[in-house]
Amino acid sequence: MIPFSQNPNFKFSFFILLFSVSHLLVLNSGFELDDSLTYIWPLPSEFTSGNETLTVDPTLSLSVSGEGGDSKILKEGFERYKKIIFKHVYGVSVFDKLRGIRSAYDISELKIIVNSDSEELQLGVDESYTLFVAKNDGKSIVGEATIEANTVYGALRGLETFSQLCSFDYGTKSVQVYKAPWYINDMPRFAYRGLLLDTSRHFLPIDVIKQIIESMSYAKLNVLHWHIIDEQSFPLEIPTYPKLWKGAYTKWERYTVEDAIEIVSFAKMRGIHVMAEVDVPGHAESWGAGYPDLWPSSSCREPLDVSKNFTFDLISGILSDMRKIFPFELFHLGGDEVNTDCWTSTPQVKQWLNDHKMTAKDAYQYFVLKAQEMAISKGWTPVNWEETFNAFASNLNPRTVVHNWLGPGVCPKAVAKGFRCIFSNQGVWYLDHLDVPWEEVYNAEPLEGINSVSEQSLVLGGEVCMWGETADTSDVQQTIWPRAAAAAERMWSEREVGSVGNVTLTVLPRFHYFRCLLNQRGVQAAPVTNYYARRPPTGPGSCYEQ
Amino acid sequence: MIPFSQNPNFKFSFFILLFSVSHLLVLNSGFELDDSLTYIWPLPSEFTSGNETLTVDPTLSLSVSGEGGDSKILKEGFERYKKIIFKHVYGVSVFDKLRGIRSAYDISELKIIVNSDSEELQLGVDESYTLFVAKNDGKSIVGEATIEANTVYGALRGLETFSQLCSFDYGTKSVQVYKAPWYINDMPRFAYRGLLLDTSRHFLPIDVIKQIIESMSYAKLNVLHWHIIDEQSFPLEIPTYPKLWKGAYTKWERYTVEDAIEIVSFAKMRGIHVMAEVDVPGHAESWGAGYPDLWPSSSCREPLDVSKNFTFDLISGILSDMRKIFPFELFHLGGDEVNTDCWTSTPQVKQWLNDHKMTAKDAYQYFVLKAQEMAISKGWTPVNWEETFNAFASNLNPRTVVHNWLGPGVCPKAVAKGFRCIFSNQGVWYLDHLDVPWEEVYNAEPLEGINSVSEQSLVLGGEVCMWGETADTSDVQQTIWPRAAAAAERMWSEREVGSVGNVTLTVLPRFHYFRCLLNQRGVQAAPVTNYYARRPPTGPGSCYEQ
Repeated sequence: MIPFSQNPNFKFSFFILLFSVSHLLVLNSGFELDDSLTYIWPLPSEFTSGNETLTVDPTLSLSVSGEGGDSKILKEGFERYKKIIFKHVYGVSVFDKLRGIRSAYDISELKIIVNSDSEELQLGVDESYTLFVAKNDGKSIVGEATIEANTVYGALRGLETFSQLCSFDYGTKSVQVYKAPWYINDMPRFAYRGLLLDTSRHFLPIDVIKQIIESMSYAKLNVLHWHIIDEQSFPLEIPTYPKLWKGAYTKWERYTVEDAIEIVSFAKMRGIHVMAEVDVPGHAESWGAGYPDLWPSSSCREPLDVSKNFTFDLISGILSDMRKIFPFELFHLGGDEVNTDCWTSTPQVKQWLNDHKMTAKDAYQYFVLKAQEMAISKGWTPVNWEETFNAFASNLNPRTVVHNWLGPGVCPKAVAKGFRCIFSNQGVWYLDHLDVPWEEVYNAEPLEGINSVSEQSLVLGGEVCMWGETADTSDVQQTIWPRAAAAAERMWSEREVGSVGNVTLTVLPRFHYFRCLLNQRGVQAAPVTNYYARRPPTGPGSCYEQ
Repeated sequence: MIPFSQNPNFKFSFFILLFSVSHLLVLNSGFELDDSLTYIWPLPSEFTSGNETLTVDPTLSLSVSGEGGDSKILKEGFERYKKIIFKHVYGVSVFDKLRGIRSAYDISELKIIVNSDSEELQLGVDESYTLFVAKNDGKSIVGEATIEANTVYGALRGLETFSQLCSFDYGTKSVQVYKAPWYINDMPRFAYRGLLLDTSRHFLPIDVIKQIIESMSYAKLNVLHWHIIDEQSFPLEIPTYPKLWKGAYTKWERYTVEDAIEIVSFAKMRGIHVMAEVDVPGHAESWGAGYPDLWPSSSCREPLDVSKNFTFDLISGILSDMRKIFPFELFHLGGDEVNTDCWTSTPQVKQWLNDHKMTAKDAYQYFVLKAQEMAISKGWTPVNWEETFNAFASNLNPRTVVHNWLGPGVCPKAVAKGFRCIFSNQGVWYLDHLDVPWEEVYNAEPLEGINSVSEQSLVLGGEVCMWGETADTSDVQQTIWPRAAAAAERMWSEREVGSVGNVTLTVLPRFHYFRCLLNQRGVQAAPVTNYYARRPPTGPGSCYEQ
């Protein structure tokens, strides 16, 4: 393989691309984006490109090698991307006829080398890949288009990038790769690049969750944080406590165990982890629809009753059942927004607090730590919303991952104390905040305020959160996209990617292009520059300028 | 077959169902819809049901007979519906295990009889079907589930109804049919049940158009009126005049001839006609991007220049090219909102008018009639927006189909003069009018004001119009749905369907159910009862009450 990382042209090419983009914007009114430019989102960490245009054979074949070459994940991925790449190609084109024979295509085979046959998908799994696309001069040993990766998941990321290099040319009606040869050496900056989905405030059907997972893979996001349950509804089947899904909105707004397994499997085929959340002790009122004993009283229903063994038996049962569904090592235990008034105002709970010489705050800590122990005993690493860290950092299990949300500055504090951290500052990365423009999402930096390399390494990454109060099947995708993609590039690409020149000039045309790519793939990404997120376009116009 | 139309229980059962629905709503708060009720949308024209619950084998097989039994349209349709029906069934269920053997299912085979092998899809094609679902007592000759239809398109409508009878039961994790036995004898009230899509104000990618076509089939809509071109952009390839798609917004917001053929084919597989529109002489400014001679002058660009032969040569070329793509007998020639000021203010056009002793209004008629002749000569029946009828009804070709839009009362006038008519009164059936609630869409009646049976027969049906000024990929589906479904039932079901009792009681629960069915199938149908169409839900809640 060509030693990409030693390629002296990398930084140079990087700036050339940025220059070209801004140059283009000045020359044109916005209607005429130059299709000889190739837009990739998120931008690879290292790449060089050239000035050749290559043609891609619509009967593109796959050649695999390496220990992991026989993977079903790889083969199904290739088939998916083939459908995307050749969407407009329905048979022999004019171009085919002119060229006569098949071998006249510059690229007729995609070679994928996967070094490891392990398909284990865990935090920090190697997602790196190299992608090489060039005219075969008969001398090269790497072929016309080659992806090399250590894992199938790296190969999937390479396939996504390859699909973005391939453009349908309406003149020749063929698929072309502009600016070849391409040498791309790519890997994510952060191991955890998440999207939260909330299926309690509004139930999202499995087809919709699958659509979202599929779209995540286009932006190289890799964690679906499934906030399954909240105070409004409990849609998931828990076989050990079958009355829990009485807390579903209706008999039809439910997930069976098999549905959940299907979602995890669908996500894995796209290299996406599913981190489930069971938020305790707050945000759990819906649990009591099936088991009212979980409420301190029928008139004071949250947080879960800390005084009863049944509460913890039930949590243990939930975790045991969910362990069989969710293999990802991280498990979210919530812990946010706990108002303990019901504990101190309900006589039998108050009595229990007195008996155990606990304040309500002590009991909150007691509850959280007990839930953490359960999760750890089942082989999970617990994640908690930042309130647990803010309230009793020194007693928190040191393996805890602190999930920031309330505001800036939390991850710096958490990593200073040796905790790992996920960045979701609500001011910039809560997608239900419709008044945050894409630039603010884009410019948010998970490492801000963290200077030491060892502390930086404790930031697992970040997550954009799609809270569901006003997001259901009808509008969830256009609330997620395109802004989630802004965060996706922030988390995948080099930190400097957006800091060269004015973001509006250097990044915006590429961002428009990616939004339109999502649209072409059937994803309801909203206009980039509308004043509020998810608002419809205000008048007629091109996707590439709205 | 059982003679459904002579079944004396039909009218009785019809009222029973309506009563049951309203009864249910009074009993419950809205959260607990009774899943022993079966909701079908649009309501079949005749049906009876019973009180049995039947189970459906997840390995349901298809048995075909009749002249049309070998149709690929039928077989692919069955496979599509199998995926919908068994969405939640991933293998052997608890229920399977309890029952032990496969033959324990009540329904293990779907028998489809298609009498004709013709797959021609033209206006008035027979969409009727009978559907029978009952426990096989060993004596019946019709089998457990049988669809009989004269054409494959009728069979597709029957498959849709069958899929709506099948519910996933979360308790047993099996698919069940409630209220069997079912005897359904169904056919549409109108032959033309359309949805207009506007791909000029915003380009809609082919994947999105396919999603919309697929969702139309769920509501038994059967005409996609493709308003391809307008003054803002010209996205379609016209091989004879290849510069026309210079009028596309960008090089990527285009349809190749092959894309269009693919869309027509995709629609046909779902029994949906595609009626293309070339709107002349107004709404055509984008044509001049490639051929500026079509403009009266570069500063006065609409309507198309009536004075040049080139204008008509080019229209003829467009129609010839499009005839190869669009086999449907109806072709829309627009003719709306023609402001002739540019003709009278541009010297060479004004001169031409004088030379030909025409007023601008005469020239408008001349243009429309000339375009009609071209379409007719190519074997099409012309459709025009109502302005042409309003301006010169007596000179209009008698085969013209008048497309109402400006307001009520036009179809009565058109059919009184012997023209056929399509109802799209903008006050109720323009989906871009966001302030029209679902009830008003539902209660609009294409036959209103038309009393004679012979005149009623001239109303082909109606069409809801999704004008695209503020509808792009991000929001088009939730602007279409669920209101388009209200019109779909109006056009499919018996005229009396909504007139029994209060619509809110008798229809609304079924309408909620259908909206949620669309969501489950991955369609972004918006909340039913939001104040403005396509608005997000205002807070957490169940799909079935928002």
